[in-house]
Amino acid sequence: SSASSSQGKPDADSKQPGYETLVVTSENGITKIMLNRPTKKNAITTQMYQEIMLALEAAAKDDSAITVLTGNGDYYCSGNDLNNFTDIPPGGVEEKAKNSAILLRDFVGCFIDFPKPLIAVVNGPAVGISVTLLGLFDIVYASDRATFHTPFSHLGQSPEGCSSYMFPKIMGSAKAAEMLIFGKKLTAREACAQGLVTEVFPDSTFQKEVWTRLKAYSKLPPNAMRISKQLIRNVEKEKLHAINSEESSVLQGRWLSDECTNAIMNFLSRKAKL
Amino acid sequence: SSASSSQGKPDADSKQPGYETLVVTSENGITKIMLNRPTKKNAITTQMYQEIMLALEAAAKDDSAITVLTGNGDYYCSGNDLNNFTDIPPGGVEEKAKNSAILLRDFVGCFIDFPKPLIAVVNGPAVGISVTLLGLFDIVYASDRATFHTPFSHLGQSPEGCSSYMFPKIMGSAKAAEMLIFGKKLTAREACAQGLVTEVFPDSTFQKEVWTRLKAYSKLPPNAMRISKQLIRNVEKEKLHAINSEESSVLQGRWLSDECTNAIMNFLSRKAKL
Amino acid sequence: SSASSSQGKPDADSKQPGYETLVVTSENGITKIMLNRPTKKNAITTQMYQEIMLALEAAAKDDSAITVLTGNGDYYCSGNDLNNFTDIPPGGVEEKAKNSAILLRDFVGCFIDFPKPLIAVVNGPAVGISVTLLGLFDIVYASDRATFHTPFSHLGQSPEGCSSYMFPKIMGSAKAAEMLIFGKKLTAREACAQGLVTEVFPDSTFQKEVWTRLKAYSKLPPNAMRISKQLIRNVEKEKLHAINSEESSVLQGRWLSDECTNAIMNFLSRKAKL
Repeated sequence: SSASSSQGKPDADSKQPGYETLVVTSENGITKIMLNRPTKKNAITTQMYQEIMLALEAAAKDDSAITVLTGNGDYYCSGNDLNNFTDIPPGGVEEKAKNSAILLRDFVGCFIDFPKPLIAVVNGPAVGISVTLLGLFDIVYASDRATFHTPFSHLGQSPEGCSSYMFPKIMGSAKAAEMLIFGKKLTAREACAQGLVTEVFPDSTFQKEVWTRLKAYSKLPPNAMRISKQLIRNVEKEKLHAINSEESSVLQGRWLSDECTNAIMNFLSRKAKL
Repeated sequence: SSASSSQGKPDADSKQPGYETLVVTSENGITKIMLNRPTKKNAITTQMYQEIMLALEAAAKDDSAITVLTGNGDYYCSGNDLNNFTDIPPGGVEEKAKNSAILLRDFVGCFIDFPKPLIAVVNGPAVGISVTLLGLFDIVYASDRATFHTPFSHLGQSPEGCSSYMFPKIMGSAKAAEMLIFGKKLTAREACAQGLVTEVFPDSTFQKEVWTRLKAYSKLPPNAMRISKQLIRNVEKEKLHAINSEESSVLQGRWLSDECTNAIMNFLSRKAKL
Repeated sequence: SSASSSQGKPDADSKQPGYETLVVTSENGITKIMLNRPTKKNAITTQMYQEIMLALEAAAKDDSAITVLTGNGDYYCSGNDLNNFTDIPPGGVEEKAKNSAILLRDFVGCFIDFPKPLIAVVNGPAVGISVTLLGLFDIVYASDRATFHTPFSHLGQSPEGCSSYMFPKIMGSAKAAEMLIFGKKLTAREACAQGLVTEVFPDSTFQKEVWTRLKAYSKLPPNAMRISKQLIRNVEKEKLHAINSEESSVLQGRWLSDECTNAIMNFLSRKAKL
C-alpha cells in the first residue's frame, strides 16, 4: 500500500519486537505505531487494544520527540471488532460488559495521559472509536480518501473516547450531534472544516507530504513541545478522565440492552452471509 | 406556505388539541411543534412561552423518538414580542421585570433539560431568543432564506438562552461577540460556517430534504439516541442552568434601565406609525 | 502608513500625553491604543508592557464605549522584544525569569479583566504574545496582509496569553496544537476560517472599512455593550486567571532552560550579523 511504500521499509533495527497486531518503529525522533490487520480493515481486537496500550506506554518513555498512529492498508481503522462481543466469559454477558468497559476506560485513559505530541496519520476510512479518539490527538492529518463515521445509534450504542465532550467543543453542538447521535458520515474535507482534522492532503502525495512535515516537526526542541502539550492538556485532564469513566459506564449498560444485542446480531449475521 | 404544503396536511388524529399559538403534531416517531402566529412573524407572546413549555413537557414523555421546532409562514421566529413589555401588572415595572425574568429562566430551562434529540427546522429569518436557543438544540437545519440576528445592544438588552456561554464555545469569542454584543446579522451560510447551523438547504427543496432525513433518523434505536443526547448534555447541564439564571437576572436589571426603556419605546412608536 | 493616513490625523486634543511607546487617542466614543515602534515591528519592550497596562486601565475608566488596539506601520506586533532577555538584573537570570513571569501575568491579567468591548485591528503580521492575546479580544479585524505566528517551540518556550485554553476552545485541539506546539504560521484567511479572526478585509480598504464599522458600533448603548461583554467574560474569568498564572509559571521555568537560552542566543547573534 501507499502507506508503507512511500515511507520506505523501516530498518530491521527500528522495528520493535513483541507486537502481533501492530508494527511499531522508532527512528529520527518519531515513534510510529501502525495498526496491522489490513485484511480486517484494522478492526481493533481485544489483543490489539492491549498492544496499543503497551506501545503508547513505551513511546511515552522512549527518546522520540513525537508519536504517530496510523493504519496499514486501505483503512485507517474500522473501529471496535464486533467479534469481540462473541467471546463470552464464564461469568456471562454481564461480566463481558463489565470487562469491556474497564478495557475501554483504560485504553482511552492512555490517550488522555499521553505526555508527548501525538499525531494521527489517517490514511483511509475511520470508524467508531478510531474517530472519537481523534479529539485527544494534537494533530490529525488525513488523506482525501479518509471518511469519519460513528454509527453508534445504529448499533444501539453511545459515544466514547471523550467525544461526548470533545466533539461539541471542537465543532459545536449542532455538528457534533449529527455525527454522534445520528451517525452522519463526514468526508475528510468536512471533518477538516469542522476542526476534527488539522489538514487534508491528496491521497497520491499524502504520505510524502505528511512525513516531510513530521520529520521537520520532530527536530524542534523536544522538552518545549512536551511541556506545551501538557500545558494544553492539563487544563482538562481531570475532566477528561471523569468523562471517560462516565462514557464507559453508560456503554456497559448499552451493551446489555436489547437495542445493542439485536443490532450486533444483525450485523454479524449479515457478514456471515457474504 | 411551503412549510405546511410540502409535508402534507397532518392527520386530524395527529394534531394535538389545546394550543392556541402552536400547531403540535405527532406521527412516525416525530413530534413537531410549529409556532403559529405567521402574521406576527411568530413573535413569542407570554402565552406562547407557556404553550411551548407545555408542548416540550408533553413531547418529553410521548413515544416519539425526536422532537422538532419550526415556524409557520415566512419567518422561523422574530423573537420576544415586544408588546409583552406593555402589559404592566399592578406591581409596576419592577414586578413586570421580575416576572419576565422568571418566565425566561423557566422557558430556557425546558430546553436545557429536554431529554430527547431536539431539532430546529429554521424555515426563515430568526431573531433574538429564537437564535440564542439554537445553541441548545442537537441539530439545526436552515433554509438558505434564513438569517440569524440578535440585536440585544440595539434594544439596550443582553444575551439569553445560554448564548453567553454556548456561542463562544460553538464559534469562538471573536465571532460570537460580533453577534451578541454588536448585533451582526448572519446569513444561513455564515451561521453554518460558524457551527451554529448543522446544514443549509435551498429553500425550494428545504422541507422535502429535511423531512426525508428526519424520518430516517426517527427510525434509529430511540433509547440509544436519548441516552447519547443526555450523555452529551449532562457534561454541562448544571453549568447551563447556572448561566441561564445569571443571564435572566442580568436581563431583569436591563429591562428597568433607561437604555432599554427608550429603545423599546422607540421601536413600538415606529411600528405604530407604519 | 495606511494605518494613520486613512483615519486622518487625530486632534491634538485627543492624543493623550505620557506615553513613549504608544499613541493613545480618544474620540467619538472610541479609545485607540496604537503600538508605536514601527521601526522595530512594534516588538514589545518592558516599558511598552507597562504603558499598555496603564493605557488599558485609563481606557477602562474613560467615557469611551469601545477600545481598540492596533499597530503603527507595516506590522501589527512582532511579539516580545527578545532584547528584554539581555537586561539581566543583579539577582541574575533567576530573578530575571521571576520578574518577567510576574510582568507577563499582570499584563495578560489586564486583558482578562478589561470591562468594555475590546477590538484588535490587526494591520499586518502578528507574532507571539500579540497573537495569543487575540483570544481575549471581543472582535479581531484583520488586513489580508496579516499573518499569525506563534513559534514558541522554536524558541524553547511555551504558550501564554491564555492561548493554551482559548485556542483549543476557539479552533479545536487539532488546529490549535499545530500553531501552539509546532509553530504553524496562519494566513489571515486561515485564522478567520478557524475563528481566531472575526473578519478579513483587503489591505487597500482595511482601515476605511474597519473604522466605518467601529464608529457605528461605538454609538450603540454603551451600558448594554459593557454588561453583555462582562456576562460573556464572567463565565470563565476565574478560570482564565488560573490559566494565566500556570502559563506564566511554566514559562518562568522555560526561560531558564538550555533549549530556550540556546534558541534566544542564536536568534540574537543571527540578528547581530545582519
